[in-house]
Amino acid sequence: MSKIAVILAGCGHADGSEIQEAILTLLALSKRDIDVEVFAPNIEQMHVINHLTGKTTSENRNVLVEAARIARGDIQDINKANINEFDAVVLPGGFGAAKNLCNYATEGLDCKFNPVVEDFLIAGMKNNKVMGFICIAPVLGAFIANKLNIKAKLTIGNDKTTAGHIEQLGNKHIECKASDCVVDKKNNIVSTPAYMVGRSISEVSEGIDKLVGKVVKMVKS
Amino acid sequence: MSKIAVILAGCGHADGSEIQEAILTLLALSKRDIDVEVFAPNIEQMHVINHLTGKTTSENRNVLVEAARIARGDIQDINKANINEFDAVVLPGGFGAAKNLCNYATEGLDCKFNPVVEDFLIAGMKNNKVMGFICIAPVLGAFIANKLNIKAKLTIGNDKTTAGHIEQLGNKHIECKASDCVVDKKNNIVSTPAYMVGRSISEVSEGIDKLVGKVVKMVKS
Repeated sequence: MSKIAVILAGCGHADGSEIQEAILTLLALSKRDIDVEVFAPNIEQMHVINHLTGKTTSENRNVLVEAARIARGDIQDINKANINEFDAVVLPGGFGAAKNLCNYATEGLDCKFNPVVEDFLIAGMKNNKVMGFICIAPVLGAFIANKLNIKAKLTIGNDKTTAGHIEQLGNKHIECKASDCVVDKKNNIVSTPAYMVGRSISEVSEGIDKLVGKVVKMVKS
Repeated sequence: MSKIAVILAGCGHADGSEIQEAILTLLALSKRDIDVEVFAPNIEQMHVINHLTGKTTSENRNVLVEAARIARGDIQDINKANINEFDAVVLPGGFGAAKNLCNYATEGLDCKFNPVVEDFLIAGMKNNKVMGFICIAPVLGAFIANKLNIKAKLTIGNDKTTAGHIEQLGNKHIECKASDCVVDKKNNIVSTPAYMVGRSISEVSEGIDKLVGKVVKMVKS
């Protein structure tokens, strides 16, 4: 039976994982009877955003503890994840991917990763595991590919700045709709822009379901 | 175009709305091109639960602010909701429905409602709007039906204590699987047990999609 790791970054699109994308990923995997383990780093969030007002609050929240809300408690510290146990890794988006898993949101091309997340993603890509990147997460894939001298095909939809960064890191950016995904067969990477361009949950659902379908097919082939 | 109100109770199954059920509800409505407005009461949560450990924390969180995470900020205070603008009302589950919308979780049959939520649900059932109740939320439906001398058919799956309360409030409890739903045609009420009995997101997704399908069909007929 295939086993896939899903990496979360908190709970909420502005300071954690995009909740809808995370749930749609778990749904698409569950529909295909895939054995899933969910992980997140056991660290403080970069900050906490009030999702009603969009303003930063004075609270402190932990990435793993908040991500546990999405996973109904069935989640582990990513430092317990062993890449050899998995056939694929999927990263949903949300600003948390670029704020908590790495600091791309504030540092752009000078981005640094959480070291445990970085080691796990490098091990995944190096060992030719199938990698699925959703929404803003393909940027993380672009940095990891760059570290391994891989020229990946990735999409974040059509945002010129982020697409430019993906290309400056030595990768190829492909424009894509939220309802579709981009497959890099050579490097075993699939990506979909989701809420980078999507306007409805059903549109985003279509793209994520296609991405998960491709990931599962590539794992089995 | 049909317009449906979705009522949330926070963000997380132990102290707010069950996130997966809430997202699956929004997905099923979006797939059917339904105009949706999401509401929650602007009140403090009963408490905050760490979803990793299951323990109560010392934090305070606001129901509307946390529910905004699920709705990507597109949510309003339920005191702004006018039942005349809607064809149906759907309540996802999670303990928050029984902790923040009313206090059934601690008071059982002596349960009291948040007054704004109570007024909105009474107005809905009185005006023959289609009412959809998911997971533990059918208990809220049972209390509202009781106040209006309506004998509703409802399901919470197969939990004897909660089913007993539904019957003691003058309603009929029907056993049901997570992948199915119970329709009370006479009273325009649909319910599904979701995570009261469900073991996977795909199973729960099936029941919620059926419930939303029935609600939409009843609105249009």
